[in-house]
Amino acid sequence: MQAAFVFESLRRFSMAFINDHYLKLKAGYLFPEIARRVRQFTEQNPDKGKVLIRCGIGDVTEPLPVAAIEAMHKAVDELGLRESFRGYGPEQGYEFLRHAIAENDYRKHGISVADDEIFVSDGSKCDCGNILDILGNQNRIAVVDPVYPVYVDTNVMAGHTGPAGDTGAYAGLVYLPCTKENGFVPEIPSSNVDLIYLCFPNNPTGSVATREQLGRWVNYALRAGALILYDAAYEAYITDPAIPHSIYEIPGALDCAIEFRSFSKNAGFTGVRCGFTVLSKSLTLLTSKGEKKMLHPLWNRRFSTKFNGVSYIVQRGAEAVYSEQGQVDVRALIDHYMGNAAILTEALRSTGLEVFGGENAPYVWVATPPGQNGWQVFDKILRDIQVVVTPGAGFGAQGEGYFRVSAFNSAENAREVARRFKEINW
Amino acid sequence: MQAAFVFESLRRFSMAFINDHYLKLKAGYLFPEIARRVRQFTEQNPDKGKVLIRCGIGDVTEPLPVAAIEAMHKAVDELGLRESFRGYGPEQGYEFLRHAIAENDYRKHGISVADDEIFVSDGSKCDCGNILDILGNQNRIAVVDPVYPVYVDTNVMAGHTGPAGDTGAYAGLVYLPCTKENGFVPEIPSSNVDLIYLCFPNNPTGSVATREQLGRWVNYALRAGALILYDAAYEAYITDPAIPHSIYEIPGALDCAIEFRSFSKNAGFTGVRCGFTVLSKSLTLLTSKGEKKMLHPLWNRRFSTKFNGVSYIVQRGAEAVYSEQGQVDVRALIDHYMGNAAILTEALRSTGLEVFGGENAPYVWVATPPGQNGWQVFDKILRDIQVVVTPGAGFGAQGEGYFRVSAFNSAENAREVARRFKEINW
Repeated sequence: MQAAFVFESLRRFSMAFINDHYLKLKAGYLFPEIARRVRQFTEQNPDKGKVLIRCGIGDVTEPLPVAAIEAMHKAVDELGLRESFRGYGPEQGYEFLRHAIAENDYRKHGISVADDEIFVSDGSKCDCGNILDILGNQNRIAVVDPVYPVYVDTNVMAGHTGPAGDTGAYAGLVYLPCTKENGFVPEIPSSNVDLIYLCFPNNPTGSVATREQLGRWVNYALRAGALILYDAAYEAYITDPAIPHSIYEIPGALDCAIEFRSFSKNAGFTGVRCGFTVLSKSLTLLTSKGEKKMLHPLWNRRFSTKFNGVSYIVQRGAEAVYSEQGQVDVRALIDHYMGNAAILTEALRSTGLEVFGGENAPYVWVATPPGQNGWQVFDKILRDIQVVVTPGAGFGAQGEGYFRVSAFNSAENAREVARRFKEINW
Repeated sequence: MQAAFVFESLRRFSMAFINDHYLKLKAGYLFPEIARRVRQFTEQNPDKGKVLIRCGIGDVTEPLPVAAIEAMHKAVDELGLRESFRGYGPEQGYEFLRHAIAENDYRKHGISVADDEIFVSDGSKCDCGNILDILGNQNRIAVVDPVYPVYVDTNVMAGHTGPAGDTGAYAGLVYLPCTKENGFVPEIPSSNVDLIYLCFPNNPTGSVATREQLGRWVNYALRAGALILYDAAYEAYITDPAIPHSIYEIPGALDCAIEFRSFSKNAGFTGVRCGFTVLSKSLTLLTSKGEKKMLHPLWNRRFSTKFNGVSYIVQRGAEAVYSEQGQVDVRALIDHYMGNAAILTEALRSTGLEVFGGENAPYVWVATPPGQNGWQVFDKILRDIQVVVTPGAGFGAQGEGYFRVSAFNSAENAREVARRFKEINW
């Protein structure tokens, strides 16, 4: 839209230009700073460094489901024989996988999603960024605070914000605070927004949204003509049967929400790379002239033009996650990590801290002791018990006063971390 | 840049907007139309349909190198054991693969490329589209004609063009004709352009650029401050030792060109998915304020924020392509397809047609007989000898009067197609 109009007026040099918006991005501060402090500590305390346990990262630790391993071996063999060799697959994913997803994750739960409304990708992070390609630049965008940084940074890169202010918040974005008071589930904003990023179970707070809370968001979106970008990458961790796994469990959501899911956190595919989006053909948005258009053909076209499908080997692995054995394996993985979460939650609570999350999510969100900020607590935990956590402020201004403990670890490490936490004196 | 300025003025509706630019895209006409004609023919001639041979598609047919198969089996096994399990890898690719690429494809040939100037991706098609993310919207863009449609369509989607005209050309793009007269290598344009897409060995014409021709382009780019996007996906098919495999064989090119390469066409990874870009830290472009900035950190940041790396399994497969056995296997694959190309070229020439390409590329580009256009010849070949080719006009206005024959086939099929071509009476 605008690009064409301002094309000539911006040409001041006879030379190729970069995308300036990238220069607004703050350097990734959180994880480099954690690494720096950990490095300094282990250099100064080499003995203590040897017993360091990391609870900072949202990455799985346990091996892949046996069913996925077997399926991928078989797929590799197929590619080694002329008779069974496969070249380019459908960009949007093989029918065998789109069908398995639509059937098992949606239709079996009474949600009417067609196979071709599933788009198989190499991961949710990619999808969360790429979805902006098919949306207009004039949308008003709401994100939660604390927030998964990818939602914010991809909008900065696309030119949807002004520069960052002193608090790290970018001009032009609407930040929705998630606090202890609202149970870390944001309120409906008073001003109109067009795109809303929601993530439940939430990273980093471990909170979940009830059916009623999601219902309010869906009603808002339907009324305001807004689009919800719903990140359900952690849905497999939900243990409370009353909590929706998909936003599509709310009537009307197919018309106003795109759901992002992943095989990373249920089947441990963080290094294998597979995820998917769900985009209903009933979802329409406006052109700049005010006509309603289906979004589905645009996403389909984006896949055809800018993507060539996920590795066949990986798609066979993902398909196997839905097999009987695959589901047993996934259940065991989730039980493992949620067992860790329970041990960690109990230990942290026993030290007198206020603890959130950890019941329907692999993240435990802990309020810092009175008078201590996130980095002070980070340093104390590192120094006193040689455990690495994540200061909440790294996820946004509202994260100050909290730290995140990840349950992604071996059972042995989780037990040891719990034991150490019980020894800490705040 | 512009997005922020025009933000409010474009908000006329309280509703989320789509990216209107997608609506300018012409429906993918070529391959659906081919499919329609083939379907109609086989329905009307079921017996002849049974002996149909497709020479239309640029997809490999032969099994993967044994070295890659073995490496991927090993990687799958590693992911099945706790001790060797790997989760998230580096977004830009594992060091083992970045090193193998930089060392074997560049440093061994005297080209100074550092490991961290290699960015491993899930394929060249993705890279060709994604590269626009880090470039400004105000660049003037040149594409060749005939052209690989992805270069054009991704620019349309990003809002870098006006609508398509009657000939299918988009307003705002500079089209550089590739004709018999210039050996299908475009001339330097008379007007200034900022981004130039070049692809050698070329799809669809099979042409290659000499050192001197590439030198002229590099000189132009250095003088004009332009950026060359150099697609070398087919470099492995070069048989003439005088032809450069990389644009970086030309002095100065590291400062003005990004090279795209792929494991799809050398090692048959079209369904496995792996490619890479090379972006030198010496390459600088302008901000809208006229400051020079390195492009490398922007591409690096894009990978960190919008991508999570290529599947570990796939990266181990790609690494194995550089092993001794892998190189032997790749050589055999290339020899196979180039053997097909030679047979097809000879057969087509023997019918009196003017034939191009096929010597340093797996595509044979054939001038239609006098008075017959591409679709007429397509229909005749389908009807008379039951072979499917690609009409050149599908790649751009300058492709009219040509058709493309792909050498990607079994040796048996290629021999049979050659035999049939020799029977055709133009």
